[in-house]
Amino acid sequence: MSPIGTLLWRNLRIYKIYGANTDVGKTIFTSILCNASRSIWKDEATAYLKPVSTGSDDEADDKSRMFETKKHNVLTDYDTCSHINKFAKGVIRQTLYQYSQPAISNEQILNSVYKFALDRAAAGPGWLFIETAGGVHSPSPSGTTQADLYTALRCPVVLVGDWKLGGISSTISAFESLRIRGYDVEIVVVFEDAQYGNSDYLKNYFEQRYGIAVTALPAPPPRNTYSKEQDERSLLEYYRKKSQAKAIRDTLTHLDRQHSARIKALEGMSAKAHRKIWYPFTQQKLLQPDDIVAIDSAYGSHFQTLTPESSTASNNKSLLQPSFDGSASWWTQGLGHGNSSLTLAAAYAAGRYGHVMFAGMIHEPALKLATMILDSLRNPRLDRVFFSDNGSTGMEVAVKMALRASRVRYGWSPDTKIDILGLKGSYHGDTIGTMDCAEPNTYNEKVEWYEGKGAWLDYPQIQCVAGKWQVEVPSEIATCQNQSFSDLSDVFDLERRRARGEHKVYESYILSILRQHLDAGRKFGALILEPVVLGAGGMVLVSDPLFQQTLVLFVRQNASLFGPDKLPNLVEDDKTWSGLPVVFDEVFTGIYRLGRVTAASFLGLHPDISVHAKLLTGGLVPLCVTLASECIFDAFASDEKSDALLHGHSYTAHPVGCQVAIQSLNQLQSLDKTGSWDWAKSNGWLQVANETQTCLAEPRPEIWSIWPLSLVQWISLQTNRVAGVWALGSVLAIRLNAADGSGYTSTAAEGLRKKLLHGVSSAPGVAWNVHSRVLGNVLYIMGSQLTTEQEVKEISDLLRTGFEECLTIKILWF
Amino acid sequence: MSPIGTLLWRNLRIYKIYGANTDVGKTIFTSILCNASRSIWKDEATAYLKPVSTGSDDEADDKSRMFETKKHNVLTDYDTCSHINKFAKGVIRQTLYQYSQPAISNEQILNSVYKFALDRAAAGPGWLFIETAGGVHSPSPSGTTQADLYTALRCPVVLVGDWKLGGISSTISAFESLRIRGYDVEIVVVFEDAQYGNSDYLKNYFEQRYGIAVTALPAPPPRNTYSKEQDERSLLEYYRKKSQAKAIRDTLTHLDRQHSARIKALEGMSAKAHRKIWYPFTQQKLLQPDDIVAIDSAYGSHFQTLTPESSTASNNKSLLQPSFDGSASWWTQGLGHGNSSLTLAAAYAAGRYGHVMFAGMIHEPALKLATMILDSLRNPRLDRVFFSDNGSTGMEVAVKMALRASRVRYGWSPDTKIDILGLKGSYHGDTIGTMDCAEPNTYNEKVEWYEGKGAWLDYPQIQCVAGKWQVEVPSEIATCQNQSFSDLSDVFDLERRRARGEHKVYESYILSILRQHLDAGRKFGALILEPVVLGAGGMVLVSDPLFQQTLVLFVRQNASLFGPDKLPNLVEDDKTWSGLPVVFDEVFTGIYRLGRVTAASFLGLHPDISVHAKLLTGGLVPLCVTLASECIFDAFASDEKSDALLHGHSYTAHPVGCQVAIQSLNQLQSLDKTGSWDWAKSNGWLQVANETQTCLAEPRPEIWSIWPLSLVQWISLQTNRVAGVWALGSVLAIRLNAADGSGYTSTAAEGLRKKLLHGVSSAPGVAWNVHSRVLGNVLYIMGSQLTTEQEVKEISDLLRTGFEECLTIKILWF
Repeated sequence: MSPIGTLLWRNLRIYKIYGANTDVGKTIFTSILCNASRSIWKDEATAYLKPVSTGSDDEADDKSRMFETKKHNVLTDYDTCSHINKFAKGVIRQTLYQYSQPAISNEQILNSVYKFALDRAAAGPGWLFIETAGGVHSPSPSGTTQADLYTALRCPVVLVGDWKLGGISSTISAFESLRIRGYDVEIVVVFEDAQYGNSDYLKNYFEQRYGIAVTALPAPPPRNTYSKEQDERSLLEYYRKKSQAKAIRDTLTHLDRQHSARIKALEGMSAKAHRKIWYPFTQQKLLQPDDIVAIDSAYGSHFQTLTPESSTASNNKSLLQPSFDGSASWWTQGLGHGNSSLTLAAAYAAGRYGHVMFAGMIHEPALKLATMILDSLRNPRLDRVFFSDNGSTGMEVAVKMALRASRVRYGWSPDTKIDILGLKGSYHGDTIGTMDCAEPNTYNEKVEWYEGKGAWLDYPQIQCVAGKWQVEVPSEIATCQNQSFSDLSDVFDLERRRARGEHKVYESYILSILRQHLDAGRKFGALILEPVVLGAGGMVLVSDPLFQQTLVLFVRQNASLFGPDKLPNLVEDDKTWSGLPVVFDEVFTGIYRLGRVTAASFLGLHPDISVHAKLLTGGLVPLCVTLASECIFDAFASDEKSDALLHGHSYTAHPVGCQVAIQSLNQLQSLDKTGSWDWAKSNGWLQVANETQTCLAEPRPEIWSIWPLSLVQWISLQTNRVAGVWALGSVLAIRLNAADGSGYTSTAAEGLRKKLLHGVSSAPGVAWNVHSRVLGNVLYIMGSQLTTEQEVKEISDLLRTGFEECLTIKILWF
Repeated sequence: MSPIGTLLWRNLRIYKIYGANTDVGKTIFTSILCNASRSIWKDEATAYLKPVSTGSDDEADDKSRMFETKKHNVLTDYDTCSHINKFAKGVIRQTLYQYSQPAISNEQILNSVYKFALDRAAAGPGWLFIETAGGVHSPSPSGTTQADLYTALRCPVVLVGDWKLGGISSTISAFESLRIRGYDVEIVVVFEDAQYGNSDYLKNYFEQRYGIAVTALPAPPPRNTYSKEQDERSLLEYYRKKSQAKAIRDTLTHLDRQHSARIKALEGMSAKAHRKIWYPFTQQKLLQPDDIVAIDSAYGSHFQTLTPESSTASNNKSLLQPSFDGSASWWTQGLGHGNSSLTLAAAYAAGRYGHVMFAGMIHEPALKLATMILDSLRNPRLDRVFFSDNGSTGMEVAVKMALRASRVRYGWSPDTKIDILGLKGSYHGDTIGTMDCAEPNTYNEKVEWYEGKGAWLDYPQIQCVAGKWQVEVPSEIATCQNQSFSDLSDVFDLERRRARGEHKVYESYILSILRQHLDAGRKFGALILEPVVLGAGGMVLVSDPLFQQTLVLFVRQNASLFGPDKLPNLVEDDKTWSGLPVVFDEVFTGIYRLGRVTAASFLGLHPDISVHAKLLTGGLVPLCVTLASECIFDAFASDEKSDALLHGHSYTAHPVGCQVAIQSLNQLQSLDKTGSWDWAKSNGWLQVANETQTCLAEPRPEIWSIWPLSLVQWISLQTNRVAGVWALGSVLAIRLNAADGSGYTSTAAEGLRKKLLHGVSSAPGVAWNVHSRVLGNVLYIMGSQLTTEQEVKEISDLLRTGFEECLTIKILWF
């Protein structure tokens, strides 16, 4: 769906009224709040909104009949809006939809609520009370429950507690359902009832645990079932009662103060952060407080961020705007922000275990996750799961595993200097050990303890240039070997390319480089690759899969190069490693980021060690798994404790992370199985493939992205500014021509980034923007695995406009 | 409170009946389940337990009057136990307590429930249905709500849904309240109601989201308010109805199957883990499947673990037993397992944000936590917070910070080899960079890329030996300088010891060692210390605080030793570092582990960089903060991006971790402020201090532990076996005489560990044990910050017995 705006205007205090149950007095409390706000803020307007009403007159009658013997006069036989009309005069009121209306979508409701609020804000200062229907989890017309329906709007809540028998329980449970969805309940209001005394217990409970105030008011008069007129009169009297005026005034003052405090806190965050936070990967001398984006919350594909001009915003401009999370929250996000099923998974494990230490112990989430991930990768080599906290530590573990396995196999002494074999521009993490796996580069060259411990091969890159897929072979590998393909799936059709002998030039290069190093006496202990996409290595780019495949096969088939290998010649489907342990760093590429469970599958290869993080937990909490073959594991077996892999973090296999990962994998697998990405696959990608396919005997590899092929091609044709572009899975990466040199320190992509950040203020709908990241002269946009066709379309349009505008108004941003 | 047993016996299926609300038919459904189980499993017994009943006759009457016009006959005017008596014949039934009884503790209720279940299990196979009171959050006599009260028992749940108007909402909310406390709801049962149709919605909802089946049954007959006799007759008829027999049979069969499946899964976990998991810090060749402890859940201070002899356990032996988490879940645990306030904090942040990337952004939990932690440490030097995922990565960050600051200050070129200064036996983490901060030892000597980059000083240790606190000075520092103190707080009284000149011998040693290294041309970039307690360095021990203080002051006062420092002489309260940046690794020692917010406070010093993890999140999810002074931060300021601290993890400052940390710090601070550890302080520790104090002018440092001084002294007197012992905060560490050499690979402490693991099977109460960890010849037991006096007493008794038994029955375990 289109971006949904969070409701926040400076001069309009908006509160959502949720009920702990049906018929606890939501409408009556709302009427009280409406009346009081009108009498205290006389120059302001008060509005009442009922987004969806159950209340046809018939239904209301029905309800009133049902509850006619209720002790208090909580439900009236008016539909709620007419109740407001009658008992809260002068209030602007509206019901948007009736339950009986067919097919109202969540998006319609949310957008209408937004529009109503926007209009109110534009009209001047005041209050807006939005009354939800039923209890917190009562279904909306689409079936989504109230609490889930309104999450994106995220306005603060007045929770109407339940004064009836059992009401303590339903009030606390309702509160918890709201809280775990990130709602801020600002106050609980409840009727006093001498018999049950719920309000006393609730006061104590909410104030002690959450610092939330509870306002208890006298209950409305008992219903007079004989005379409607009499009933109305006594209710009017109730509303006019002076005795409760102070409590209500205090309540409204509190709500008024909370509203201002929220805005003040939001507006102060960036400056405070500028003073207190030491940011990752940031030259803070170049960072101004205004550059720091204040996030109020996030839902689905969007952050809700404070608009830069908030302090001077006019009344009709919301202080918050949806901002597409274009770095998929730094590459972790897969299932949407505020995904309540992930939240509940996390909370379940927290409730069942907290954290339980893992050495010598086992718990269900860890075992289940280990089994699931081993099964899902379909790599017959992998048997063992080692848990750690993030990609960097998981790669440290992988390196320790691989080096030991090589040293044991080849009989090297413990003090032997062992290097790794990798690709130039690789990046495996920020801890010193993984930094040492990367060739000297911007990230590490100034780090005091960095010492590259490897040999790094050059490799051919793929991108779309001027409408064609180019495999660009560096001159170190071969001269004049660049190849051009009209279809990306042809590039990935490794069998055919191999049959055509395209790999031979790669083999010669690999052999020549290896010979150089080996002849110089160097020893290698691991081949470490990021399959297909090299994530953070200063650039985002796709490496020719044929080259990577050739490299792995070459290493496996030429074991004798690396050491005195006494094993018989090994075949690919053997579970024993050969030559060097092959480590795939799938921290970024794995678990559907590129549209498949593994990026290894693009290469048709099974690594001996595979590392997975980021999407593993769907974008919620840190967790990493390093998977290894039994043969690697066995290298650590000994009667000596000190031969073991003496690595481990306190939160190893923490149950919260494992349970969230199980839930994420389940959801991602089900998205895959149920064809949730069919819209993307048919977005130009597989059509092309299928057309060609008809004349081919064998199917070609399924290569696709959520970013339409037509967009990729169009961008590639902006050759004045674009050096190349590619898309795969949820990733779109645009390499711009960099006047100021390429690499991480380039600022070439900044202009495009700012254009996206400026965003769209289109009517109808809310203003929104795209928060994207640049890596030097590369700008990338990364969706989640739930990013919709509509979102992609809107961002694509924004991108095109960005390029076009910059053409007409001079290329300011280069 | 004493260990609470989780309910699990092979032949007794136990289900707890929770209600989505009051009066949704809990008792009627329970009667149905009771009747059906009796008719299907004819040779078995069915029991019904109502732990706490609201039902005096009066109250019941009262309730019945209130609800007399209810549509269905849900609440009867019998108290629930007599309802069972009347309508579920042949069922063993009991009510344990009445609400009206004064002062029933939670512990009493839980122990009585356990005892009832134990007796039922001993009596033979069957079913036990435990009916809770009211809704899931209805208060128990102590005020704790039902859901929180019974968490420790953790038996699976039958949730009775709400068929009434609003019942969809209350059923889902009630479910969520249970789920976030780790309950397994095995089935939802609900009455069919044509008007509201809740059951259809709920079926769909629970099956799709959670795979939980929903059984809908016809509602009981409408109440006949005129004739009690007639009413009973129609209710009896309802219970005997054949039409619903299949649904009930399916439900019970499902519950029966789930019970077996749970046991089977638990019993299979260790063997599966043995095949699939690669354990941290474990020589798996020496690990048998039986050595792997299967954890069902954890609550408070205890795991609930599968008993080793479960497969042969007789009926009266529970398959699970509480096992004291004696490593405080590997040093992270502070606020109890399954702490619902931490769970809700985590869930709130998950709902509000999920994860949001942090570079150039700010969100409330990160800013709040940064502010709180800076404030709470009361270290005027610290201004900046850098977030990472765990102690090891946080220390990598600290090292990068410190080395850069030194290099910039002293004008060294980027390729200068810079070492760190530290103590022998230090341990800072498992990633290569932090391993390099430790002198060669068991942990790192076999790691291929380890290369110690430092100089490590020897240091005096403290422990209680034969009743006296000994400061043992290694011969490298001085000969015959061992000192003996009768009171540990005298050892920590640094001012007096300094006045007596005790630090001078330390100064000479420090200078002589430094001179050696500096004369050899080595350069140092940081002083890195674990203040007071060196956690994992192969041993657990306390370092003489006077030595550590002397070392820091020496480094700060002799800046010219380390480089061409052009700054004027600096004083201790200056915010600018002097000599070397001082890094305190408080990952383990900080945030109340030793009874104070920082261990630095024992030394009366302020480090320039301080690293905190583990207890930071109270024992729930990984998070680490590296705090630094502005002066260190400024060393990275430049116009070059590449001069920045180019470090960062994807989940940097993840909101879930930050929110949990805020909640943890709040709770820990409030425990501190409200004197929650007074019982421990007066447990021998401060009494001794106070007695001496009367004749002293100034107060002495407050040194205490939850482990009573008398226990520490008693253990220290077992001189045949004990080399020394110490306790501080929640830590107790016993160093055993090791026949087979000391150090990490020693097995000397294994015997005592096994004794603790064998545990206690005392009556009354449940059998329980202590899960502790050994580091070579050191056995330690670590409580949480909520460990109670009673728990400490029971474990102390077990420890004493352990020592005594081993004396009489020959010292088998040495």
